[in-house]
Amino acid sequence: MKVLVLNCGSSSAKYQLINMEDESVLASGVIERIGIDGAFLEHEPAQGEEVKVENEIPDHSVAIKMVIDALLDDDYGVIDDMNEISAVGHRVVHGGEEFADSVLVDDEVYEGIDSVKDLAPLHNPPNLLGIEVSQELMPETPDVAVFDTAFHQTMPAKSYMYALPYEWYEEHDVRRYGFHGTSHKYVSKRAAKISDEPIEDLKIITCHLGNGASVAAINGGEVIDTSMGLTPLEGLVMGTRCGDIDPAIIPFMMEKEDLDASEVDTILNKESGVAGVSGVSSDFRDLKESANDGNERAQLAIDLFCQRVKKYIGSYSAALGGVDVVVFTAGIGENAIDIRAKILEDLDYLGLTLDEDKNDMRGKEEVITTDNSDNIAMVIPTNEELVIARDTKRLVIEAQENAS
Amino acid sequence: MKVLVLNCGSSSAKYQLINMEDESVLASGVIERIGIDGAFLEHEPAQGEEVKVENEIPDHSVAIKMVIDALLDDDYGVIDDMNEISAVGHRVVHGGEEFADSVLVDDEVYEGIDSVKDLAPLHNPPNLLGIEVSQELMPETPDVAVFDTAFHQTMPAKSYMYALPYEWYEEHDVRRYGFHGTSHKYVSKRAAKISDEPIEDLKIITCHLGNGASVAAINGGEVIDTSMGLTPLEGLVMGTRCGDIDPAIIPFMMEKEDLDASEVDTILNKESGVAGVSGVSSDFRDLKESANDGNERAQLAIDLFCQRVKKYIGSYSAALGGVDVVVFTAGIGENAIDIRAKILEDLDYLGLTLDEDKNDMRGKEEVITTDNSDNIAMVIPTNEELVIARDTKRLVIEAQENAS
Repeated sequence: MKVLVLNCGSSSAKYQLINMEDESVLASGVIERIGIDGAFLEHEPAQGEEVKVENEIPDHSVAIKMVIDALLDDDYGVIDDMNEISAVGHRVVHGGEEFADSVLVDDEVYEGIDSVKDLAPLHNPPNLLGIEVSQELMPETPDVAVFDTAFHQTMPAKSYMYALPYEWYEEHDVRRYGFHGTSHKYVSKRAAKISDEPIEDLKIITCHLGNGASVAAINGGEVIDTSMGLTPLEGLVMGTRCGDIDPAIIPFMMEKEDLDASEVDTILNKESGVAGVSGVSSDFRDLKESANDGNERAQLAIDLFCQRVKKYIGSYSAALGGVDVVVFTAGIGENAIDIRAKILEDLDYLGLTLDEDKNDMRGKEEVITTDNSDNIAMVIPTNEELVIARDTKRLVIEAQENAS
Repeated sequence: MKVLVLNCGSSSAKYQLINMEDESVLASGVIERIGIDGAFLEHEPAQGEEVKVENEIPDHSVAIKMVIDALLDDDYGVIDDMNEISAVGHRVVHGGEEFADSVLVDDEVYEGIDSVKDLAPLHNPPNLLGIEVSQELMPETPDVAVFDTAFHQTMPAKSYMYALPYEWYEEHDVRRYGFHGTSHKYVSKRAAKISDEPIEDLKIITCHLGNGASVAAINGGEVIDTSMGLTPLEGLVMGTRCGDIDPAIIPFMMEKEDLDASEVDTILNKESGVAGVSGVSSDFRDLKESANDGNERAQLAIDLFCQRVKKYIGSYSAALGGVDVVVFTAGIGENAIDIRAKILEDLDYLGLTLDEDKNDMRGKEEVITTDNSDNIAMVIPTNEELVIARDTKRLVIEAQENAS
């Protein structure tokens, strides 16, 4: 079975075609600038060179058609017939309270996703568009929706509720949802496998540290808390997002600078985080270089980031009643050696002592605490596409079995 | 030396007259509804019965005059001459970045307090008014300002800075200040004394749990982090304040319900917290009764409150690299047996195991963890007035010594 994994943004689309027999990636690629001048597709087959196709790409329908053409291409394609694509797995950002698992898309599911679009106005509409176009172009091929929020739906109310007027929850669905669920799910399962312990027995804290970043507390395989909230703004310090702040800062600054709700939202999401503090960049490689050159604000941005992650590890240890495994993943978590070291500094009281030699590597599945540590910290490269493909396969097979 | 401690709010004033020879309270009282119909003074001498005087109290000048009259009264007064009051210690909520300690008030200090009034628009103006009136009525008596924020000024930048545009800090002083400083200071010093360890060697987490509530992480006697921020809204779930939320909820709800900055600020400060969640009350005794009667939202409010405190204890353990002593203080911390028990549940990994028998008491200085616990949790009734009086005495004596 071959599964096409599709992640549609408002002006971009990423894809992978995965052979589920051995879970190998047959081809992957990205389309950028949909509906904008200078659109292009970059396509990389497993065997052979990456190709770049520049073209006018007015909408998602044209974009996804281009993906299929690239997969079928005589030179750089990887399949001979569109029917080799057994199913399409779609990343959908927000599943609200309705979706606690991935789901085969039918009309009702489509409506369900549409009904929570207010909670992710920038993400759910293009995700839905991807599903629509997929069904147009491949009407016989099943579509599966895999939600960023679903893995977090096991949280208890004491974690997902805010101390706000209860009516805000009842009338406007204001609660913690959490994001990066497919990543937290993937690395927590891998962590159990690598630790050679049943996941049911483990208290795991997963740190997904990329340009967007979140932490999850996972008890026996189920999320009990996570740092992102109603939206992906809450929690850690991120590239351009502020994470946790005193909420009173918002009305305070709105009055000081005469900002409206939408302007302040933009500043908190796009002009804050390590970029806002440093004034340098949202990229940690730039920050490190700048800090090494003596830029104090760049150093401060790095310190704020690390301190926040460290405090969340402490916080979630308390929520879990201790911790067995801490996992680092995503761009920064997999590659930033210094950042991992700084986060783990002085966490010996949790049974976590860094092994500097083991930590001196990038992008590999590896334990980075000393052999003497009571507990474990490890790096696990994430693979969200694989989770989407696996869920897609599982649901398609289940549906076939139910039908027969 | 007798010190008058004065805490002026916008429509109220609390006071204590303390004899510094033995730190005994000679009299204490409160004036309510200043400038409002139905104003009154309640005065309680150490010896004798509480009296209530109803009167028209149009402003703070009349109010403080009434306090002095009460202290001098033939029947229920405690001094014979106004000159027995050697100094007045004023609680001032916000000292900004300028005041890292209490200070003898002169013109420059007055200006300094006035200059940060934007950061505490409801509190600093009446605090200043108290100082003004005090100087009018007792021109020869020195005034000392004791700030809620001062004890927290030892925080490093990685704790006090937000991941927001750096200009917000430079131009509008947006940073973490922290509050309840006099309380955190008092109980952390007592904790060291009771533990019989030098405070320099201790990692202490102090939980001030009242209608307003905050946590502080204190390393070697110095605050390294605290949960309240630019304002007292951040951090724990409180009686009517939301504490930490996803900041994006604010613009989201402003658009949903067409709220302006000031309206949303009021909701977050006055209609949220355990009162907003439960719909019952901001008082934990009411919540407990209601939860016992089967009200799930009242139970949820209690759970949210406890879970947040527990997570802050975990978070600050990480910031401190472990914890030696956890202190509970203020109304809830001193008196709510169940709440303390729930917060400490499953914190054995921190070396904290509750002793249910020891915990079964209210308002006493007592260790509440088992003798076998590696570390200690204790209850210490707070005494902010005493800290204010002590600082006042210290600064007045210093000034006298410098003058001689």
